[in-house]
Formats: sequence, structure tokens, C-alpha cells
Amino acid sequence: MTYSNTRVKLASRPVGLPRPENFAIDTVEIPPLGEGQVLVKTGFISLDPAMRGWMNEGKSYIPPIGIGEVFRAGGAGQVVESRHPAFAVGDYVTGGLNVQQYVLRDGATAQDPANPAFLLKVDTQIAPLETYLATLGMPGLTAYFGLLNTGQPQAGETVVVSGAAGAVGSVVGQIAKLKGCRVVGLAGDQEKVDYCVKELGFDACVNYKTENVRAALRAACPQGIDVYFDNVGGQILDFALEQIRLRARIVICGAISQYNNTTPVQGPSNYLSLLVNRARMEGIVVFDNAAHYGTAAREMAGWIQAGRLNSPKVQVEHGVENFLPALLKLFSGQNFGKLVLAP
Amino acid sequence: MTYSNTRVKLASRPVGLPRPENFAIDTVEIPPLGEGQVLVKTGFISLDPAMRGWMNEGKSYIPPIGIGEVFRAGGAGQVVESRHPAFAVGDYVTGGLNVQQYVLRDGATAQDPANPAFLLKVDTQIAPLETYLATLGMPGLTAYFGLLNTGQPQAGETVVVSGAAGAVGSVVGQIAKLKGCRVVGLAGDQEKVDYCVKELGFDACVNYKTENVRAALRAACPQGIDVYFDNVGGQILDFALEQIRLRARIVICGAISQYNNTTPVQGPSNYLSLLVNRARMEGIVVFDNAAHYGTAAREMAGWIQAGRLNSPKVQVEHGVENFLPALLKLFSGQNFGKLVLAP
Repeated sequence: MTYSNTRVKLASRPVGLPRPENFAIDTVEIPPLGEGQVLVKTGFISLDPAMRGWMNEGKSYIPPIGIGEVFRAGGAGQVVESRHPAFAVGDYVTGGLNVQQYVLRDGATAQDPANPAFLLKVDTQIAPLETYLATLGMPGLTAYFGLLNTGQPQAGETVVVSGAAGAVGSVVGQIAKLKGCRVVGLAGDQEKVDYCVKELGFDACVNYKTENVRAALRAACPQGIDVYFDNVGGQILDFALEQIRLRARIVICGAISQYNNTTPVQGPSNYLSLLVNRARMEGIVVFDNAAHYGTAAREMAGWIQAGRLNSPKVQVEHGVENFLPALLKLFSGQNFGKLVLAP
Repeated sequence: MTYSNTRVKLASRPVGLPRPENFAIDTVEIPPLGEGQVLVKTGFISLDPAMRGWMNEGKSYIPPIGIGEVFRAGGAGQVVESRHPAFAVGDYVTGGLNVQQYVLRDGATAQDPANPAFLLKVDTQIAPLETYLATLGMPGLTAYFGLLNTGQPQAGETVVVSGAAGAVGSVVGQIAKLKGCRVVGLAGDQEKVDYCVKELGFDACVNYKTENVRAALRAACPQGIDVYFDNVGGQILDFALEQIRLRARIVICGAISQYNNTTPVQGPSNYLSLLVNRARMEGIVVFDNAAHYGTAAREMAGWIQAGRLNSPKVQVEHGVENFLPALLKLFSGQNFGKLVLAP
């Protein structure tokens, strides 16, 4: 059987919001499998705010995507052909599948967790495939390590998380609840707010588009904020800094409000609250915890199976050629939960 | 003998740079000593950037100075009369003497280190009296705890300090050298730059008024910055953030460039460098280490006596009524080293 593979490549570096001309779409035939190779059909491509940063030139926590390269992405899929004994047709896998419909890998390389071509076999009896791009994938692991290792929440403390209904935020808030904290979210529409409070068990959630954020946050955090897990940056970070308690921890996970800026990033005007409160602001990148992914994923899988952790809602967009309009939903807040693309 | 005591009180809260009308000066007679009392003549009043913050209303790490209160200040002086057996005429002491020429204290209270009225007896054989307001006082202790506990410099790392010729910065840089680090300072005139390099042994010092700070810092820190000890805030903090290394530590000790702003504080636009570099920014307040002052001061006294730690230059201004013009020298950079007022 032959397979035609439609792929999205980065054609040029965007300034501000990415535009169609920044991408090139092509279709190539997958060659017949050589000895030891395995072919995966992409089921879901993970769409993440961090992708915007990967389009920029310059030093970051990973190199930028090269011009002309297939766009980098995590994904989950199924083996459709295999000439390697470690992979059988029908196996479900996750890994760096990128923005394309198929990926051909060397089976030996794909068995090495330290290799970027690694394919992790996953069990869809434990959770549906897309959950391996959410709670049991990078967003869930980001929440787990960022909150527990850097936020260090203690029972009875108040944890605030922005992007609360998102793939990372929804897991942050639920883990904080599991640890005995008061949890307050920030989200951009009433449906998300209701979801956080009614379905995820947050103590409160502020609608940052309709409420007076400063006052609503103060009302929801009468003791002040011990841990602020920030996914958005901008003015919300400043309001949170203003309301932190002594020895608070601010986890800098992202700043989605700033990623498409053509002006300089808005720095937190209230950063001297760190001094007043002897508080700490620290950046996290999930990749640093790669050696502990398994342990974390097993603990979270246990919580899921025990009904103590809800997987984020998953919103599926369709068609690899719709990569850009789908991605832009992240920046306009039109997604709800984990956004994926079925190519 | 009778003593007339001239004092400076806070009359109103300044907006921007403090002005003469924000202060009231009066002179009162010291009453005859009661049983158990002790009278100290102030030798030197410590002038510190933090004083600007104490004039503002609102939550901070200590309450603001009340309107009508004698202005809060650390000081060093000598006992001139005593009716308490623990204090003898001629004893040298430091403590919260405030901006005035004399202070009358209850001797029992003055013996309690936990009481704000505490008077610490000091030995002018070890170091001159004014050194107890510098290296062996709050600025030195701030440098010691901020650098060692929060900055955590390791041998071979690069430590950058702003306000490098100042009372805190000069000690930070020297302790970092003692710990085997490459040390780069930032200072505002050539005399201060030369002092840091030639007298204090810094590896380099950037003149932030005449040099291209970004380029000069890059040249002086070819490996990037591991620890940035910030006394100034503003644009220099942003340049430092831009050049930090993986897992860098930013110690927020002060932000003298911002204290007299009438516009919002300039937040660090490059704060997402914390994320890229998994770095940490943390605020410090020296008072948190009160239980360990003795240990730290003994270690620093040992370094001074061994010739391994130079005390900062001390600049003495004269006359309690000159409190404001003397204080303003801190904000215009006209002081050199530790600024004190002999009232």
C-alpha cells in the first residue's frame, strides 16, 4: 500500500500573529518501508502555545524550527506498517510526530527514550489516545512538575492558576486540590469558569474578561496568594504579584498574552512585591524532568483511574491544512481545554 | 548636664523625590535620666535607599514611618549617661537610633535583641564605629545573606552586582571573590569603577553612564551571568536578565532607579528569560536573618581582620538638619560607598 503524506512546514518567521504565508503545505509519497522501519499514522497533533515561540529566531530553551522544516509538534498515532519487531501494526504511540499525516521512523532509534525520534507505546485501556497529549502528555507533565517541584504547594495554602480551563491549568488546579489547597482559577469565558468550579472542583474562578480582576481575585483569595502558576503574563501577572503572601512562589510556565506582541513584552511592574514578600519567581520547562516522566505519568494515571483527576476537555480540529486557523484559536481563547488537530 | 536633641520627623508623604516640606525639624530637651535609663549620643546615622520606601503608605516589609514620627534610621553612638548596670559611659552601641542627636532608652529593654529598642554593644578595636553601619551592619549583612543564601554562588560562576561601589554592592562583590567567582560590577562613575577593580579586586566593572551597558556586560561576562545581585532595577535588570545562564539566580535586593518614580515601576521586560533559562528571581529582606546576624558578623569581622574584606568607603555628611540633602545624594549617585550623617 502507498501513503501520501501532507505536511506543514515553516516558510518564514512571523512578526506578530502568524499568517498563512508563514507556512508551506506539501504532499509527498511515503517510500516503501526498509528493514527495521516503522510507519505511524498520526491520529492527533498537539497544538500548544509554546509553538509560537518556536517560530522565532534566537536563543530559547530549544532551537527554533528551521525555515523549510516540517513544523515541530507532539502527536499520538497508530502503527500502520512495521518491519521492526518492537512495533506491531495497531500499536498506539506518542512522540514528536510533527505536523503531518504520517511519520516513518527507524524502529531501533524509536526505542531510545533519549532520541528525539522516540516513540512511546501507550495503553488506550488506561485512557483514550488523546489523553496522552493532555493529562498524560506534555501539558499534564508540565502541570505536575511545575506545580509540585517549583510551586511546592502546602495543604491549606491558596493556589491561583491562569489559563485555568486549559490543558495545563486544569491539571494544575486539580493537583493543587488533591494536595489540600484552596484553588482559584482565571479563565476567559463563563463556560470555562463554570467548568473549573463545577466539574474540576476549583474553589473559585474569575472571568478575566467580564470581572474586575483585581477585586475578584482579592475576594477569592482572602488570605492572599501562596502559589501563582502563570500561563498568561501581562496584567494578570501584575495583579497576582500585588496579592502574594510572604514567601510566595510564582511559577512562570508561559505568557500567552505576550507571544504575538510586536512591542516589547510587558514586564511585571509589581515585581518588587517579590522583595516585600521575600517571594520567588521561577521559570520551568517540562523537558528538564524527562527522567521522571514515567513516575509522574503513572501517578496521574492512578488518579485518573481512581476518578480523582479529570482529563481536560479535548477539542479536536480537523485537517492538517487547517493547522494555522486551529493554532490561532489558542491565542484568541476560542479553544476549550486541550486543542488537537486530527490531520 | 542637660542635652538638647534636634530631631527630624516625617511631616508628609512625598510624591517623587522627597522635598523639604515633607520633613519637620524640632529640638527638645532630654529629661533627666530615670532609674534604669541610658542616654546615647548618636555618632553616625545610616542613610539607606530603603528609607525612601518607608515614607510611602501601604503594605511593605515593615510599616511605613508615621506622620509626625521621628524618622526611622539605624545608627551608631556612644553612651554619655547611664543609670543601668549593663551600660557604662563610653560604651559604643548600634541600633535603631533614628534621625536625631540623642536617644534615651530603658536599659532593660535595650538588652533584648528582639526589641526594636535594642542597643548592641560593639568593639571599636575590631573596626571603627562607622563600620558597624556598613560591613558589620545592615548593608554588610544584607550582602552576606542575600548573596550566600539566595544567590548561592559556586566557585567558577559569574556574579554581577549593580550599585557595585555602594555599601551593599561592594561587600557582595568581595564575598563573591572570596567564594571563587568571577565578579563584574556596575557603577555610575569612573572613580567608582576604578575602586571596584583596583581596590576591591573585581574582575571588571561597567560604567553604566558612559558605556553601552549591554555590550560591556556581554564582554565582561563571556560565559553569561550565573548570579545577578540587583540593587538598581530598571534597564540594567533587563540587560542582566537577557544574559543569564541556565539556572541563574537573580537576587532582588533593591531598585534604587525606581524609588522616586511618579510613574509605575518599570517591570523587567525580559522576565521570560527566567523561563527560557529555568532561572529564579527572589526578593530578600535582611531582617529575616536576625537570628544569624552574630555568626555572619563574626565571619565578616574575621575576613576584615585577615585583610580579605575591605570595608566600603564611608562618606560622612554633617548636621542632623542636613538629613534630606544628604539622603538625596543616594538617589543622584553623588555618594561614594556607605553614606552616613554625623548629627
